[in-house]
Amino acid sequence: DFLNALNEVRPAFGASTNDLERCRLNGVVDCGVRHEHIYKRTMLLAEQVRVSKGSPLVTCLLEGPSGCGKSAIAATISAETMIGLNESTKCAQIVKVFEDAYRSPLSIIILDDIERLLEYVAIGPRFSNLISQTLLVLLKRLPPKGKNVLVIGTTSEVAFLDSIGICDAFSVTYTVPKLQTEDARKVLHQLNVFSEDDIDAAAEALNEMPIKKLYMVVEMAAQGEQGGGAEAIYSGSEKIRISHFYDC
Amino acid sequence: DFLNALNEVRPAFGASTNDLERCRLNGVVDCGVRHEHIYKRTMLLAEQVRVSKGSPLVTCLLEGPSGCGKSAIAATISAETMIGLNESTKCAQIVKVFEDAYRSPLSIIILDDIERLLEYVAIGPRFSNLISQTLLVLLKRLPPKGKNVLVIGTTSEVAFLDSIGICDAFSVTYTVPKLQTEDARKVLHQLNVFSEDDIDAAAEALNEMPIKKLYMVVEMAAQGEQGGGAEAIYSGSEKIRISHFYDC
Amino acid sequence: DFLNALNEVRPAFGASTNDLERCRLNGVVDCGVRHEHIYKRTMLLAEQVRVSKGSPLVTCLLEGPSGCGKSAIAATISAETMIGLNESTKCAQIVKVFEDAYRSPLSIIILDDIERLLEYVAIGPRFSNLISQTLLVLLKRLPPKGKNVLVIGTTSEVAFLDSIGICDAFSVTYTVPKLQTEDARKVLHQLNVFSEDDIDAAAEALNEMPIKKLYMVVEMAAQGEQGGGAEAIYSGSEKIRISHFYDC
Amino acid sequence: DFLNALNEVRPAFGASTNDLERCRLNGVVDCGVRHEHIYKRTMLLAEQVRVSKGSPLVTCLLEGPSGCGKSAIAATISAETMIGLNESTKCAQIVKVFEDAYRSPLSIIILDDIERLLEYVAIGPRFSNLISQTLLVLLKRLPPKGKNVLVIGTTSEVAFLDSIGICDAFSVTYTVPKLQTEDARKVLHQLNVFSEDDIDAAAEALNEMPIKKLYMVVEMAAQGEQGGGAEAIYSGSEKIRISHFYDC
Amino acid sequence: DFLNALNEVRPAFGASTNDLERCRLNGVVDCGVRHEHIYKRTMLLAEQVRVSKGSPLVTCLLEGPSGCGKSAIAATISAETMIGLNESTKCAQIVKVFEDAYRSPLSIIILDDIERLLEYVAIGPRFSNLISQTLLVLLKRLPPKGKNVLVIGTTSEVAFLDSIGICDAFSVTYTVPKLQTEDARKVLHQLNVFSEDDIDAAAEALNEMPIKKLYMVVEMAAQGEQGGGAEAIYSGSEKIRISHFYDC
Amino acid sequence: DFLNALNEVRPAFGASTNDLERCRLNGVVDCGVRHEHIYKRTMLLAEQVRVSKGSPLVTCLLEGPSGCGKSAIAATISAETMIGLNESTKCAQIVKVFEDAYRSPLSIIILDDIERLLEYVAIGPRFSNLISQTLLVLLKRLPPKGKNVLVIGTTSEVAFLDSIGICDAFSVTYTVPKLQTEDARKVLHQLNVFSEDDIDAAAEALNEMPIKKLYMVVEMAAQGEQGGGAEAIYSGSEKIRISHFYDC
Ligand SMILES: Nc1ncnc2c1ncn2[C@@H]1O[C@H](COP(=O)(O)OP(=O)(O)OP(=O)(O)O)[C@@H](O)[C@H]1O
Ligand SMILES: Nc1ncnc2c1ncn2[C@@H]1O[C@H](COP(=O)(O)OP(=O)(O)OP(=O)(O)O)[C@@H](O)[C@H]1O
Ligand SMILES: Nc1ncnc2c1ncn2[C@@H]1O[C@H](COP(=O)(O)OP(=O)(O)OP(=O)(O)O)[C@@H](O)[C@H]1O
Ligand SMILES: Nc1ncnc2c1ncn2[C@@H]1O[C@H](COP(=O)(O)OP(=O)(O)OP(=O)(O)O)[C@@H](O)[C@H]1O
Ligand SMILES: Nc1ncnc2c1ncn2[C@@H]1O[C@H](COP(=O)(O)OP(=O)(O)OP(=O)(O)O)[C@@H](O)[C@H]1O
Ligand SMILES: Nc1ncnc2c1ncn2[C@@H]1O[C@H](COP(=O)(O)OP(=O)(O)OP(=O)(O)O)[C@@H](O)[C@H]1O
Ligand SMILES: [Mg+2]
Ligand SMILES: [Mg+2]
Ligand SMILES: [Mg+2]
Ligand SMILES: [Mg+2]
Ligand SMILES: [Mg+2]
Ligand SMILES: [Mg+2]
Repeated sequence: DFLNALNEVRPAFGASTNDLERCRLNGVVDCGVRHEHIYKRTMLLAEQVRVSKGSPLVTCLLEGPSGCGKSAIAATISAETMIGLNESTKCAQIVKVFEDAYRSPLSIIILDDIERLLEYVAIGPRFSNLISQTLLVLLKRLPPKGKNVLVIGTTSEVAFLDSIGICDAFSVTYTVPKLQTEDARKVLHQLNVFSEDDIDAAAEALNEMPIKKLYMVVEMAAQGEQGGGAEAIYSGSEKIRISHFYDC
Repeated sequence: DFLNALNEVRPAFGASTNDLERCRLNGVVDCGVRHEHIYKRTMLLAEQVRVSKGSPLVTCLLEGPSGCGKSAIAATISAETMIGLNESTKCAQIVKVFEDAYRSPLSIIILDDIERLLEYVAIGPRFSNLISQTLLVLLKRLPPKGKNVLVIGTTSEVAFLDSIGICDAFSVTYTVPKLQTEDARKVLHQLNVFSEDDIDAAAEALNEMPIKKLYMVVEMAAQGEQGGGAEAIYSGSEKIRISHFYDC
Repeated sequence: DFLNALNEVRPAFGASTNDLERCRLNGVVDCGVRHEHIYKRTMLLAEQVRVSKGSPLVTCLLEGPSGCGKSAIAATISAETMIGLNESTKCAQIVKVFEDAYRSPLSIIILDDIERLLEYVAIGPRFSNLISQTLLVLLKRLPPKGKNVLVIGTTSEVAFLDSIGICDAFSVTYTVPKLQTEDARKVLHQLNVFSEDDIDAAAEALNEMPIKKLYMVVEMAAQGEQGGGAEAIYSGSEKIRISHFYDC
Repeated sequence: DFLNALNEVRPAFGASTNDLERCRLNGVVDCGVRHEHIYKRTMLLAEQVRVSKGSPLVTCLLEGPSGCGKSAIAATISAETMIGLNESTKCAQIVKVFEDAYRSPLSIIILDDIERLLEYVAIGPRFSNLISQTLLVLLKRLPPKGKNVLVIGTTSEVAFLDSIGICDAFSVTYTVPKLQTEDARKVLHQLNVFSEDDIDAAAEALNEMPIKKLYMVVEMAAQGEQGGGAEAIYSGSEKIRISHFYDC
Repeated sequence: DFLNALNEVRPAFGASTNDLERCRLNGVVDCGVRHEHIYKRTMLLAEQVRVSKGSPLVTCLLEGPSGCGKSAIAATISAETMIGLNESTKCAQIVKVFEDAYRSPLSIIILDDIERLLEYVAIGPRFSNLISQTLLVLLKRLPPKGKNVLVIGTTSEVAFLDSIGICDAFSVTYTVPKLQTEDARKVLHQLNVFSEDDIDAAAEALNEMPIKKLYMVVEMAAQGEQGGGAEAIYSGSEKIRISHFYDC
Repeated sequence: DFLNALNEVRPAFGASTNDLERCRLNGVVDCGVRHEHIYKRTMLLAEQVRVSKGSPLVTCLLEGPSGCGKSAIAATISAETMIGLNESTKCAQIVKVFEDAYRSPLSIIILDDIERLLEYVAIGPRFSNLISQTLLVLLKRLPPKGKNVLVIGTTSEVAFLDSIGICDAFSVTYTVPKLQTEDARKVLHQLNVFSEDDIDAAAEALNEMPIKKLYMVVEMAAQGEQGGGAEAIYSGSEKIRISHFYDC
């Protein structure tokens, strides 16, 4: 169990550095006003932890459907406000992450995909009660005097986390939404793979889609019907044919 | 399991010393007549254990919603009436805590967040029957002749504790309430972060809120819309804008 | 599990010697005709085991609500009719207790709080099937020729014991009742903490109460409203004020 | 588990020798025509195993309420038809019992209280599937050529055994009944503790009672109201007063 | 678990050699047209595995009520078409059986009483998922090129096997029936223990009976009412009295 | 568990090389337009992984009834587009397979029969949560920069995989269908074992049949009623008699 935990733990604790770099390469795409709002709110919490004497521990849960950008928000913030994110093996590792954090005057801990940390599966349901108990205690334990910690969690199984009392253990919860037509249009503009005439139709078709799925669909469409069309699209010399796009 | 218990046990057994100091720094805030009543009653039980020959063991359960001040009541009493609170690792530790207590003529044992001691989770439900059996025996076992013990437990899962017979094992149970408008007004007065004109409106908005959540909301509001406003508020030079307060 | 059993086993097997001494100090209080009847019946069973050639094994279960005096009856009998009650660690210990008993010509084994021996908890329900199987075999196994054993069990979870076939394994079962008004009046007379005028009213208020709870309520009332009143009450110089008694 | 099995196994496998001797001391009492019938039938099966070439394995289950004489029938037969009954520790022991039996040309194996062998408890229900699988295979496995085995099982949990397929694994099943008035009258005559006038009334009161319970009730009644009356009754100098008998 | 498996595995994997010899001694009895059909079909499958290049793996499940002759069909075929049937300890053994089979150009594997291999019990239901997973993989794994395997399974718990997907894993399933009146008449003729006049009546009474039960009933009847009659019957000098036969 | 995993893992991870060779021997048979479509789509995904910079991880699930050709599609692609398919022991092995894949610039991982990898059984249901958690993390973890991976999974238990969130973890899912009359006719033409007149009737009878079952039925029919007919059929000198075909 433990050896296996070692292998799983990197992607489970915060987005990997690969992921961060990749985000930066494409630039951070503007996903619309609701993502913006959550981003700002989370920044304010980081500020509050830094300056306030009365909030040594602030905990914040980002929840929303799979692929809607929760990890990206969490990763960006952690990258912008603090260096040296703690990631380690399950339980013992989680405790260690918190105890390391208690040593710096100011830390951010990112618990990415908490349901995966808990080894949650809907049937049963089953999950690690050992880890859930550890989290429940850690999310309530005040850091030592003069130390301040912001904990950001992400999950796409908010109903489950709620049923085991983990949502209550967070100070605040924000819901990261899927893209709506307007948001999708913004994103497509930035990707620049459709002709101006097709963007509205494409955005309409992408309503209520998580951003991750949007990227997948666009990639598939860029291949073209017979494959091999991607390079021309991404170099900007061609655009995706909207009719082919609908097939994907 | 056991190694992990070592890490969890400090916050589980009574409030940590940090927490106590913090309480003292802000002064103990007056939370209204119902908190007062419970506080007095619990003091009388401590007295009864000390003087009476016929009550060598008195056990008292403080229950109420999360963040309503149960641990604060328990911690204050233990600090005021007796020195050297016993805190240790799960089961074996719990037994040790009781056996140490049997050695002094008069002891108070605080079992903070009993549901956490029991590793309780609502799904299943699951919990440690080993620990629950240990508690059921210890809460009934009379101390040796001439030794007297007061056990104070806290929980926010009273329905669960009842279903496994732990409530019945306590001599008395008191319910620590959430703050009502009147209580919230008292607390806000003492915090002095609202202008006199806004206190009534703010207190109204905080009706039926646990005190912990009240502190969180006030802190967030003190940040201001753009962050950076907290210092001015806490120094007393500015007050929280009530309209911004409603957004938090 | 086993180490833990060592700690639990003393209170689980028969009342501790402390408890016995305590009973003697206050004198054994007369709890009314129904307690009397059970006490006599249980004495007759002890007699039957001693004299009869055809009953080498008699088993008797005392059941009733928590705190109604089951352990006190069991302890008194064992103290009056036989010396050297066997108490030891769970399962292995239970077997040892029986095997030691098979060595004396005449023994009494007290299984106090059988549900605790079984580590019973209502949720599930969970319990140790290993111990229940051991008890089921031991309660049926005839002692060697010429050896006679009386087994007295107590429980406040008779419905559970019944459902796993342990009640059927006992030869007879007696129900120890709560105190009714008349019984409570007798007890209060003997405690002598109320004025003669108040005893009837107090007894009325204590109807259907286990004797243990009666003691607790009287102790709390004896403290007085502000604490410190107990000594005067127990020395007999003052009586409990009936109005304050109702508040407890 | 295994050490514990060692302690349990003696009473579980066939009636102990003590029990057999005891039966002989009192003489085998005549329990009426239905017990007689079962006794004869079981004798015939033993005969069939002995003489027939085509029935190398015959298995027979005696089932009926607790205390109705199942173990006594099984014990008597084994004592009358064959010496050296095999009794040993659970599973491994059970296999050994069968393998030892395969070595003699003719053996009887008694599986007394099969539900106890299986560690059965009604809640769940729980039981040892390891042992049940072992029994299911052994009850079907033909002994080596030229070896013949009769297996007699007893149980008071026939519905459970049926539900796990063990009843089907036996060739035949006989139900050992409780005593009816007529049977009880016969038994009481043989015990000779009532005056002739009272026997009918006593037998009536004992209708539908297992013989074990009958013995217990008679023993209790023989004590008399104040104890000490048993010797006079059993010596024959006095009879049990029928009115006192009704109280037991 | 594993040691125990060693003891169970012989009867679980294919009929034991004793059983085979016994069958031959009495001669293989003709059980009617439906048994005949299944026997022929199974022979054809063995042929198909042997000659066809495109069916390197054929799997066939014989299912039917307990005692209806499934193991006898399986055993006969294996004895007639191939020597050296593989039988070994559970899981590891099962894998070994298959891997040994992969070494010969042509093998038959008999999985007798698959529900027993799986340690199946109806309550729960419980069974070994480890073994069921192993079987599911093995029943689908093609033997190496040029090797051919016929797997014949038997079970009396076809509904259970179906629910865990094992039936689907077999290429074909045949249902071995109980004897009907006509079949029973054929069998009785061959046994020659009834007078010609009684055979029809006896066969009628044996309608819908598994052949194993038929043998048991005939054996019991052959004993006669007082025992000792079997030799005369089997020597042919006497016949079973039909009236006594009805009592069995 | 682990030792056993070693034995199971080969057939569980991708079709064995035997299977591949066998496919080639018979030639890949044309199964109709729907199989064709899935085959092409899957080829395009392989292309997309190879050329696109933005899709370093593409995951594709082939689901459909048992025997409908899922493993054949997966095996063919992997054989055509890449050498060195990774297959190893459960969990640890699965992780290793992925980590090896991260080392080549371009890899295909085939997870054949995912329900078998998960040790799924419908009763309970039971399955390895350890493996399911491992897959859930691996199917989401991006390969290191510059490395590209296509994961193809197959399953015949798509509803189960969906209920534990594994379907969602795949980028796309394609349903491999059973053969319909038209598809069966195409296949029978290629097999050339029926006379032209019978093919339509035979194809009709094979409607909605998985291809694997079609092969089995044809093989059985080719044997002929008395066995021994297969060689003549496959050499082409005779055809299967349609009337005999209907009996199989
Ligand atoms: N603002 C953004 N700009 C560019 N790319 C983004 C942005 N937000 C998300 N993405 C990309 O979308 C994909 C999905 O985002 P992310 O992994 O954060 O989703 P998630 O909500 O964490 O999903 P899951 O619940 O599956 O973990 C990522 O590959 C990420 O790089
Ligand atoms: N009377 C008081 N004066 C000042 N601060 C208080 C007072 N009561 C409670 N608090 C503060 O409120 C917060 C919550 O109180 P506490 O931890 O006692 O709640 P709780 O009921 O134990 O909650 P939980 O069920 O989550 O453990 C603490 O930070 C504590 O410092
Ligand atoms: N007859 C009596 N005289 C004096 N004190 C008594 C008497 N009976 C019981 N008590 C006291 O009452 C208290 C409860 O009695 P006891 O422990 O026997 O109850 P119980 O039925 O065993 O309860 P539980 O089910 O909780 O074990 C004990 O402290 C005991 O000393
Ligand atoms: N025919 C008999 N003659 C004399 N005593 C008998 C007779 N049958 C039974 N007994 C006595 O009755 C008692 C109960 O019988 P036994 O132990 O055989 O019952 P049982 O059916 O096995 O009960 P259980 O289900 O509890 O094991 C025993 O003490 C035995 O000695
Ligand atoms: N054709 C036959 N001729 C002679 N004896 C037979 C024949 N078929 C079965 N028997 C006998 O009938 C008995 C039961 O048959 P068998 O053990 O094959 O049944 P089964 O279906 O395997 O039963 P189970 O499900 O209990 O394993 C055996 O003792 C066997 O010897
Ligand atoms: N296009 C094809 N041409 C020739 N043979 C094929 C073709 N497709 C499948 N088969 C054959 O059909 C059989 C079943 O196919 P396959 O094993 O791929 O099915 P599956 O869907 O993986 O079934 P399962 O769910 O049982 O694993 C195999 O023996 C394979 O060789
Ligand atoms: Mg994420
Ligand atoms: Mg608390
Ligand atoms: Mg008690
Ligand atoms: Mg018995
Ligand atoms: Mg069989
Ligand atoms: Mg497949």
